[in-house]
Amino acid sequence: MTIGIVGAGQLGRMMALAGYPLGLDFLFLDPAAGSPAGQVAPQLQQAFTDPQALQQLAAASQVLTIDWENVSVPALKALAKGKGKGRGTRICPPVTAIAAAQDRVSEKKLFDKLDIPTTRWRAVDSLKDLQRAAHAIGLPGVLKTRRMGYDGKGQFVLRGPDDIQRAWDALGAVPLLYEEMVPFDFEVSVIGVRSTRGETAVYPLNRNFHHDGILRLTRAPHGAPTLQRLAGRYIDRALGALRYTGVLTIEFFVRHGRLIANEMAPRVHNSGHWTIEGAQTSQFENHLRAILGLPLGATHARGHSAMINLIGTMPEQSRVLAHPDLHLHDYGKEPRPGRKLGHVTLVESTALRCERRSRTLMAELVPGTPIP
Amino acid sequence: MTIGIVGAGQLGRMMALAGYPLGLDFLFLDPAAGSPAGQVAPQLQQAFTDPQALQQLAAASQVLTIDWENVSVPALKALAKGKGKGRGTRICPPVTAIAAAQDRVSEKKLFDKLDIPTTRWRAVDSLKDLQRAAHAIGLPGVLKTRRMGYDGKGQFVLRGPDDIQRAWDALGAVPLLYEEMVPFDFEVSVIGVRSTRGETAVYPLNRNFHHDGILRLTRAPHGAPTLQRLAGRYIDRALGALRYTGVLTIEFFVRHGRLIANEMAPRVHNSGHWTIEGAQTSQFENHLRAILGLPLGATHARGHSAMINLIGTMPEQSRVLAHPDLHLHDYGKEPRPGRKLGHVTLVESTALRCERRSRTLMAELVPGTPIP
Repeated sequence: MTIGIVGAGQLGRMMALAGYPLGLDFLFLDPAAGSPAGQVAPQLQQAFTDPQALQQLAAASQVLTIDWENVSVPALKALAKGKGKGRGTRICPPVTAIAAAQDRVSEKKLFDKLDIPTTRWRAVDSLKDLQRAAHAIGLPGVLKTRRMGYDGKGQFVLRGPDDIQRAWDALGAVPLLYEEMVPFDFEVSVIGVRSTRGETAVYPLNRNFHHDGILRLTRAPHGAPTLQRLAGRYIDRALGALRYTGVLTIEFFVRHGRLIANEMAPRVHNSGHWTIEGAQTSQFENHLRAILGLPLGATHARGHSAMINLIGTMPEQSRVLAHPDLHLHDYGKEPRPGRKLGHVTLVESTALRCERRSRTLMAELVPGTPIP
Repeated sequence: MTIGIVGAGQLGRMMALAGYPLGLDFLFLDPAAGSPAGQVAPQLQQAFTDPQALQQLAAASQVLTIDWENVSVPALKALAKGKGKGRGTRICPPVTAIAAAQDRVSEKKLFDKLDIPTTRWRAVDSLKDLQRAAHAIGLPGVLKTRRMGYDGKGQFVLRGPDDIQRAWDALGAVPLLYEEMVPFDFEVSVIGVRSTRGETAVYPLNRNFHHDGILRLTRAPHGAPTLQRLAGRYIDRALGALRYTGVLTIEFFVRHGRLIANEMAPRVHNSGHWTIEGAQTSQFENHLRAILGLPLGATHARGHSAMINLIGTMPEQSRVLAHPDLHLHDYGKEPRPGRKLGHVTLVESTALRCERRSRTLMAELVPGTPIP
């Protein structure tokens, strides 16, 4: 049984490593040489949109999935309807869900439709639109590109009226969205999974700490029963409405005990990496079980986990492993500023120990990153 | 960093899957097509003794290790001293340790030298030797080939004097060993690891259940502090004496609270598969850390584990996964009677729950196997 995956980054790599014990095979499509997933599985080194490569991928696979949400929706649609060898290929998650997550406006519309509280927002296609939006929603606010944003890229924070022109000059070349800047108390994310047989499961809530727009630390479970219930209800609603298959993630701001949806990702998520050692079944394995129509694995936590991202440079390996209970995940990438190169996971018996040790470890392993 | 591995079976496969998160690469040597490890890593499909293939493997690797102890010692020795591209290659565990474990007589001599209690034994090279051995040690007893025995292969149980001729006829073509048959209470194994820097660690004791000479079930930790201490002392002694590098396993009979060494394996071991989910660091990861001179990972148990071998035929996958907390490991092998095709691991919060559920699961997943 071969799973075809568009994108061969670290998410695909960890998916393959979770799928091999189930006896699965993998084939990746990615134009990059030396990709994280290509080091552990075969890879077609072609453009994501190359119709022939996509057909080859589809023809070799029982089901297609993604490691990266910014794949070409038209290319996937053509494949799903399709002509040629890979025609009528099953794609998980559904292309409509991928499309919704690619565009911040359709994402916001979806949240609104599903009664999932989100930030106030307006689509912006001109300087005048932006002026009106800033007036209606207020300042400060954030101008974001509708597409291709990740790790804080394609965003401009407007603090006062003078920033309107500056923001427009910086981002105005593409369709945009303006939204209120929520003075949140903290950030969480919820990861849910729905199988092709309609079975669903939800992971314990992740508490996330960002810096410069990039996730630095996740602790889980964030043991707030009311928030967990609420997040579970929202993700269930989204999974059902989208007739979703696979893992879906929603990131929230928390303010005064309320959840405000920030964005969603139609895939396994950085804030769920702790599930490899810290949950009964990892998000990667459950994504595969879901898209293959297999029974889902249990999602409960085994202890209290912290996941620290290794960004830009890798700490010395022997220094990480000198902590005998740490789990290192090296994605096999060339170091580059701001690049996610790996992560470490810590599992402790209590939330307090987890909090304390994650602080000490951050100070040692990722010096210079503010410690929450 | 590439690890070269001679043998591409399930042990190598699980080693690669444990090593990828550390950022390691692998290259296997095995004549078999479609091997378990060859499905997840590159493989040189050549004979184990092919000098050119061995040199190629060594030249491409920082360190060589084995997935199978019956490798050719002369070939490895030639490589370690060597000429050609892969010359002077570091081999872990040391070739002397591999050689000792390949021959039941040198294994017994080692146990005797290290004061590790073992069965009474005699080397047998003729029918007369066998008659003398049976007389000196008594009947019943077991005649075993000195080399290439595994999973109960190459053994003949002598119950009475009439069996002497029969046993000789069956096995007499090769060098043999006769040993007493120990009426043991139960069987355990201990897994230890020693790094190239001399650091050692020992896993909790495994309690093993065999049937027809093949391991069927392991439960761990076998929480008997006295036995654990004793086993720890024995394995430490062996690790030190052999100046060992990597994972070493010793299997024991337990009788009246005493440990009697049965045999040793210079490698990761089937009875340690539960460590993937059930220990802080798996035996596979610790073997790699050890041979690379990295700090060893913690070996303590996370809960109470049971590992059930899947032999001959695989149960239906969806049936296994319908137990939401089970971990399936499918080795990607063609089914064949008596062949180890995979295993499942269960981790429970108490020893009693683990014992009960492992019984129920065996009845369901491996019907026909006697349930301990």
